[in-house]
Order: sequence, then structure tokens, then C-alpha cells
Amino acid sequence: MSVAPAATLRALRERKPLVHQITNYVVMNETANATLALGALPVMAHAVEEVEEMVGLASALVLNIGTLSPHWVEAMVLAGRAAKARGIPVVLDPVGAGATRYRTETARRLLAELDVTVLRGNAGEVATLVGVEAEVRGVESMTAGADAAGLARAAARNLNLVASVTGPVDYVSDGESVIAIENGHELMATVSGTGCMSTAITGCFLAAKPDDALASAAEALVAFGVAGEDAAAGAQGPGTFHVLLYDALYALDPATLDGRARATEA
Amino acid sequence: MSVAPAATLRALRERKPLVHQITNYVVMNETANATLALGALPVMAHAVEEVEEMVGLASALVLNIGTLSPHWVEAMVLAGRAAKARGIPVVLDPVGAGATRYRTETARRLLAELDVTVLRGNAGEVATLVGVEAEVRGVESMTAGADAAGLARAAARNLNLVASVTGPVDYVSDGESVIAIENGHELMATVSGTGCMSTAITGCFLAAKPDDALASAAEALVAFGVAGEDAAAGAQGPGTFHVLLYDALYALDPATLDGRARATEA
Amino acid sequence: MSVAPAATLRALRERKPLVHQITNYVVMNETANATLALGALPVMAHAVEEVEEMVGLASALVLNIGTLSPHWVEAMVLAGRAAKARGIPVVLDPVGAGATRYRTETARRLLAELDVTVLRGNAGEVATLVGVEAEVRGVESMTAGADAAGLARAAARNLNLVASVTGPVDYVSDGESVIAIENGHELMATVSGTGCMSTAITGCFLAAKPDDALASAAEALVAFGVAGEDAAAGAQGPGTFHVLLYDALYALDPATLDGRARATEA
Repeated sequence: MSVAPAATLRALRERKPLVHQITNYVVMNETANATLALGALPVMAHAVEEVEEMVGLASALVLNIGTLSPHWVEAMVLAGRAAKARGIPVVLDPVGAGATRYRTETARRLLAELDVTVLRGNAGEVATLVGVEAEVRGVESMTAGADAAGLARAAARNLNLVASVTGPVDYVSDGESVIAIENGHELMATVSGTGCMSTAITGCFLAAKPDDALASAAEALVAFGVAGEDAAAGAQGPGTFHVLLYDALYALDPATLDGRARATEA
Repeated sequence: MSVAPAATLRALRERKPLVHQITNYVVMNETANATLALGALPVMAHAVEEVEEMVGLASALVLNIGTLSPHWVEAMVLAGRAAKARGIPVVLDPVGAGATRYRTETARRLLAELDVTVLRGNAGEVATLVGVEAEVRGVESMTAGADAAGLARAAARNLNLVASVTGPVDYVSDGESVIAIENGHELMATVSGTGCMSTAITGCFLAAKPDDALASAAEALVAFGVAGEDAAAGAQGPGTFHVLLYDALYALDPATLDGRARATEA
Repeated sequence: MSVAPAATLRALRERKPLVHQITNYVVMNETANATLALGALPVMAHAVEEVEEMVGLASALVLNIGTLSPHWVEAMVLAGRAAKARGIPVVLDPVGAGATRYRTETARRLLAELDVTVLRGNAGEVATLVGVEAEVRGVESMTAGADAAGLARAAARNLNLVASVTGPVDYVSDGESVIAIENGHELMATVSGTGCMSTAITGCFLAAKPDDALASAAEALVAFGVAGEDAAAGAQGPGTFHVLLYDALYALDPATLDGRARATEA
């Protein structure tokens, strides 16, 4: 299977889909700017008074529990149900699942009550949600993921969705195929919120191509990884890397993007 | 009418007015840093326990409903009443009015209950609030504003305030005069929160010159637009543009600023 | 007394301690990224449902009241008690104490109910908390601190903690010794959140060396100041300075760090 994000990126930039994000306080500006730099339109709205109506305008919904609290979880449930009713894709980022019971239980509740299209997390978070032993410290995964490919496949099967497990190598699976993606750069781990950005970008690609979640999720990680490679080329450290990442997302060139994909069937 | 922001900018940098902002989660850091780079002092406070007292220390109040929820709206009302009692200017940014009923109704409520000095929004938001048909998607205005100048005048008259309608060309009106401002750069639309920054900077200029809201609002947009032009000169994309925007605000030179204004009576 | 941060920085980078931060909306991304660039792991969590459990994973707790509200204060109290039970250090940043009664009373309550290891604030905030007259406007201290050294000593004695009073010269005291630190750069005052970053970095150093709070707090300010000096060397204004600050924290070199300390017994 070849992963070819260029066509989806072209469609995204032409249609400029609205991507509704209920995410954490730490990265809101960052995921909004990543979404905008890529070519889609972000909107952040979390009040129960309006989330269903806002979902009605959106082409994808991104849920991220990085700084969760009860009102926000309630809004995520309402928004997620509205997304299901409309048939638009939902991406869940279970930030910190495994670190506290509240995070683990909330992620499980969202998986149970909603129709999550793609689960995008690190190995520790995803392992927690499929019942595999994992070491999680805070919101960082400590598991190197000896078998992250197997974890992605198991998560996809058990949870009936596309699992997108990111790390030094990313693995995306629908329960049958597993795609390994080696794009990216180690500086991505030095900036807070790059995981959340990859979730937002997954939402953007799903908004542009909702009918093939496995491909869209893999394409998103290739595109984000290529942008990371470009940003790293000019960076002197995490600060300049972070800034150049937006420039790189904005400059992603569909004419060369597919050829730069380092994605293989695992 | 000539728009000459230099004198107001000089006064602002000398007095360093405190500008109280009750704004959205996405842009808090950005508007605080824009305020500080320009030369004023930002303070963010949203608890009903303290907003009235904080307004008592401030020279202007900025209200922005970008990620509104009931507690925050309540705080905006309390703060706005305190601002009225003290006679300090209030700027309202009705982010996303027209996108959801909650946003539209909240913006209308704030306009009705408070003494808003300047309404700063995009064409879709302002059109919604004066009852003109508008297409709004999320927090982005889709209306190019065939007659944004007329919209600004109508909003100023109907709502009895200064209307500041931003877009490729900005229009500021007190219901009689309409000033068209062509400063700025298209890269501003690629960074989330530049609209909110223009609102914060409007608050800064009002704090420095509260007795002429039309002039202050227009001067703010000229100053911000000039900074955008300077930032764009060194930018490679939205990330570097965003960073250089703070440098440019900080470096705004009163000696050359008035001469760079591209403002005309519309 | 010599202030030698290199060994603590080496230990921090080796152990990568988790630093739990309950901080304000304006700077969350900034303090998370400063923590990560330095070499520790940040986690933001504020729900009463999980803060005690998250503290259980952390090596230090940072409390910052910059955008306080009742739910957040309640979480700070719970987290602070859990930190005390575990014996991990707590840093308190009383942002805006003196500006509103709510901030002053909340800071006093946290000092009274918790076992605060280091109080990190500006002169106006700290003066307020030890009952000295101070002019505070918003979250900015207006007192130049004719005797900031004496203030640091008095705060440490009266409140029974290490006081870290930052300004053009920083003063850190345990009530006996007072260390004056002259590292840093004036551009730090042009970026919102550098004070909050210094608090977060104090938490990181305490996590790495909890048994000597005076030394850890002083070392943190030296390290942050040196990073500020390095960032300023390449900066054109507050925007580029802000970005280069993360690069500089990441690049801090233990081999040269101790020799660059400008710290003396005051």
C-alpha cells in the first residue's frame, strides 16, 4: 500500500474544511495555527451551549483530553454524538491515559459512547486503552513499544477504529493492514504539543477525505513528518524548530510530497 | 481626515496603561505579548471574584468571546459594568457571532447591557449583529463584504458605537465618517489570533486616547497593519511572520509611522 | 556561597523529573516548553478529580495563580496537600498578589494551608504577602525594590520558606543568606510569562535537587538568566527573543554554566 497525501492535501486546501477542536489549554493556539498553516480552518468551542451547533458546521471533530475537567468532558460527549448523527469523522487524543484514573476512564467513556474514527496516541496511552501493561509518566509515554505495530493492530481490532500510534516510528492500523511511517524528526519530541498537532492534522486530513480513515490518518502523519523534517533543516533548537514547523506546514508542496513519504506495510 | 497614530503611540509608551483583557484561551498569550510589545501592560483576569476590582486598575477593557462559556460571560458583564461606572473604554470582539446562536446572543447581550466603545470584528460577525445576511463558518467570515464600508457605517449608527470592520481593507466608522485602512499584509490571515490582537491593540490605543474613539480605533489598525508589513518583509511563512510581528510592534517608530498610514476617508 | 547549577542541570537531564504545573492560561504552553527545553517533563492537570493522583507521579509541584478561579484554587489546595504528604517540593507564584483582594487572599491561603518550599514573585507581590507597602498594577510590580534583598530575607523569615524575588537583580533567601543574581537580560521583561517560566524552572531544579531549596532556587535563576543572555545575543526584539529562549534553555551547557553565574552573597 502506498501512502500518497498530495491529493488529499490539494483537496483540503481547495475546500478549506472547518475542523472543530475541543482540546487542551496548553496547545490550543498551536493546533489552531497548525490547522491554519496546513490550509484548513480551525474553530475552538467547548461550551455545552454551542458545541452541537458548531459541529453542525464542521467537517471533522477533534477531541483531546489533555487538560480535562467535567464540563469539558460533557461537551466532548455532546459534540461527539452530534458528529455521529451527522456522520463526520471524530479523532480522539487520549492525552495521559494511564497516568490517572480520571484520564483512563474518560478516554474509555469517550470510546464507548462515541463513534471514534481514529484514536491517535502514544504507545503508553494506547496500550492502556487496550489493556496492555504500559508505563506512563504524566503525559509522556515511557514505553518504547517493542511491538508498537502489534499494538496498533490490536487497538484497531479491539476498539473497532483506526489506531494511530505515534513515536519514533508511527504505526497506523485498521485492524488488518499496519502502515509504518518513518517521516519526522527527533526535534518534534522537544516541543510540547506536537502530538496534539498530529491529532489536529489527522482531523484535517479526515475532513478532506472522510471515506478512507486508514489512508487519511497515515497521510496526515506523513505530511506532518515531512513538515518536521523541513523545519528541522533550519532549526537551532526547539524554539526555532517550533516556529519553522508552521512555515513548513504552510509550504508543504503537493508536487513533491508523495515522493517523500517513508511509509511501508509493516 | 488624516490618521496619525504616532502621537498616541508615544503617549501609550510613556504612560504604559494597563489593559484588562477577558479573552479566549486560544490567543491569551498572543494578545498579552502584542500588548506588551506595543508598550502597554496586559492583565488577564476572568473570575467574577475579581474582575470589577481589576477593571478599577485598568485604562481600557477588552472583551472577546472566542471561547465563551457562562461563567466567562458573567464576568464580562460585571467587568463591562464596572468599566462603564469608571468611564473607561470597552472594546468588544464578537468572535464567531453568526456561527452559533450562543455566540450571536451573547454578543447582542453584551452590546445591549454594556457601553461598548468599539466593536471590532470581521464583516460576517458585524453583519450578523446589525441584522444583515452573512455567511459565517466557525470563526472565519466568508463574506468578502461587497460593501464593508457601508456595513461599518450601519453598525456604528445602529449600535451607537465605533465599528471597526477588518478584512483585506479595514473600515472604521462612527456612523458619520468612514475611514478605510489599507495597511497590513495577507500573511496576517495565516496566523490564528491576529484579529484578536487587533482588538487588543485597539484597546491599547483607546487607553492612551480615550476621548476620540474613532481616531484611536483607526490608529490602532494602522499601527498593527504597519507592524504586519514590517513582519512580512522578513517572514518565510506564518510561523516566522508570527514571531516577527512582536518584534515589529516593539520596533514601531513614531518618527515614521504617520507617513506610512494608508488611510483615507471612504 | 558559590552558585553552581551545572551538576543539578546534569542530574535533571538524566532523571527527567515530572513537574506538575497548575498554572495560568496565558503561559501554559510557554512553561511547558521551557520545562521540556530544559530537560524535565511537564504535565498540566487541574481537575480536582485527578490532581492528587498526578502529584503522586511528580517530583515537584508548581502553583501559579495568574488566571485563578475557585475551582482552580481548590485543585491547588488538594494538589499542595498531596505534595506535602509525599514530601515533594512546592513552588508558588503569587501572580498579581496586591492587585486584587482575591489574588492576595488566595496567595495567603495557599501559603497558610500548604507547605510552600519556594515563593517566586516580583517585589510588589512578595511585599504584599509580607505586609510591606507596595505598588502593584495588574500583574506587574511597580516597586523597583530599593531593598529587595531585605525583602527577600524578611519574606523567607516571616513565611518560613525560601523567597525568590525577581527583578533587574534577583534575590533568593532562606531567611539567613541572601544570594543576589545578576544574570539575565532586559528583553526578558518584554515577553509575557518569563516570570512564570522562572517559576517553572525553579520547580524543575527543585525536582532535581529537593534537599537544598536555597541552592536549587538560586541555580534555577542563574540557568534561566544565562539562557536569557544567550537568547538576547541573537534577538531582534521580543518575538525572536522568546523563540531563542527555548533554544538557549535546550543548549545550556553544563561545562560552561557554573563559570557564567553572576551570583554573590548580598
